[in-house]
Amino acid sequence: MLPKAFDDLIEALGSLPGVGPRTAERYAWTLFKRPEAKLKDLSESISSLHARVKLCPKTFALISEDEDVSELYSNERRDKKIVMVVEQPFDIIPLEKTSKFNGTYHVLGGAISPIDGINASDLKIAELIQRVKEDEVEELILATNANIEGESTALFIQKILEDAGEKVKMTRLARGLPTGVDLAYADQITLAHAFDGRKEF
Amino acid sequence: MLPKAFDDLIEALGSLPGVGPRTAERYAWTLFKRPEAKLKDLSESISSLHARVKLCPKTFALISEDEDVSELYSNERRDKKIVMVVEQPFDIIPLEKTSKFNGTYHVLGGAISPIDGINASDLKIAELIQRVKEDEVEELILATNANIEGESTALFIQKILEDAGEKVKMTRLARGLPTGVDLAYADQITLAHAFDGRKEF
Repeated sequence: MLPKAFDDLIEALGSLPGVGPRTAERYAWTLFKRPEAKLKDLSESISSLHARVKLCPKTFALISEDEDVSELYSNERRDKKIVMVVEQPFDIIPLEKTSKFNGTYHVLGGAISPIDGINASDLKIAELIQRVKEDEVEELILATNANIEGESTALFIQKILEDAGEKVKMTRLARGLPTGVDLAYADQITLAHAFDGRKEF
Repeated sequence: MLPKAFDDLIEALGSLPGVGPRTAERYAWTLFKRPEAKLKDLSESISSLHARVKLCPKTFALISEDEDVSELYSNERRDKKIVMVVEQPFDIIPLEKTSKFNGTYHVLGGAISPIDGINASDLKIAELIQRVKEDEVEELILATNANIEGESTALFIQKILEDAGEKVKMTRLARGLPTGVDLAYADQITLAHAFDGRKEF
C-alpha cells in the first residue's frame, strides 16, 4: 500500500537499534516532509561516514580521517601508564568532562555478551594486552559498565592479564550512591556496594 | 571530543522526532559499524526519497513517481462518493487491512494543533472541500485520531463544510471498547463512549 521506495526506507530505518516499524514510519514521514537540501545533508553525512571518521589504532576512540592517533593519546600531558578501559567511544565524553583523569583511554568496542553474540575476540582485548606491554602500563582502570556484561568483561580482562603474567594494577570505578539520590530510592545492590565501600568520615 | 563528521551525523539524526542525544549517538555508532555497502543503501534511500515518492494530487496518499494518482482512487471499484478522511498516509494501511471499506481516502497531512504550530491552512482541507464538490461526495467519514487534535480537526471540517453550504453526510468512526479488553481496564472516557453508543442485543 506504500510506494516501494518508501517501504525500503522504512525497512532501512527499522534496522537501527530499538526502532520498531511504527517509529521507522514516523522517521520516514518526517524525512519525506523535509526540504531536499536537508535530505542531502543527512544522506551525505551517512555515505561519507567511513571516509571521514575512523578508529584510532592505539585507543580505538573515534578520530577524524586526517588524524593518525587520538589527541587523547598523543598529547604529551597524557600519562600513558594509566589506561581507562571503556566499552564505547562515547563513554570517554562524561569521563573527560570530570577533568579528573589525565591518563589515556582504551575503547573495547562493547562488552562480552554471549546472548548478543559478542565474544572476547570481538573486542579490542588483544590490543589492550599489547598496549599494557608496549607502554609499560602501571594501572588499568576497568571502567566497563556496572552491569552483568560490564562486570564479566572486567573479570575476563583481569584473568587474561594475570594468566599472561602481567603485573599491572587493576582497579574498578567506585560503586555507591549517586549524587542527589535519596537513600529510600536506592536499590539493594547499590546500597550493598555503598555499605561495602564506606569511607571513614 | 568526537570528530566533526561524527558530531554532524549525531546532530542530523537527533533532529528525527523523539530522538535525544543519547539515542542519536547509538544510531550513529550502529551506522559506523556497518559495512560501506549498507551505509550507501541507506544514504541512497534518503537522497532519492523525493525523486521516487510523491503525494497523490487527489488523495494526498504516498505514491510512486511513475503513478499519476493513487490506485486507491483510480481503481474503478472504489466508490468516489464515500471519502475516509485520515491524518497520515499510514492510517490507510490498517483501514485497508479490514477489507471493509471500498470508498476512497483523503489524507490531511496531520491534525490541527496550535501548540505544534499546525493550523488548518497547513492541512489539505481546501483540497477536501474541492473534492467534495467535484466528486459529488455523499459521505465523509472523519477518521481523524480519537484525541483532542483529531476531534478538533473533525469539528473544524464539519463547520467549514456547513458554512460552505455543502450537504454532505459526515460520520465519525465508532468509539467504544476495543476487542479483547477487560471492562475493568477500560478508561472512563472509553466506557462513557461505549455506554452512549450501546446497541440493541
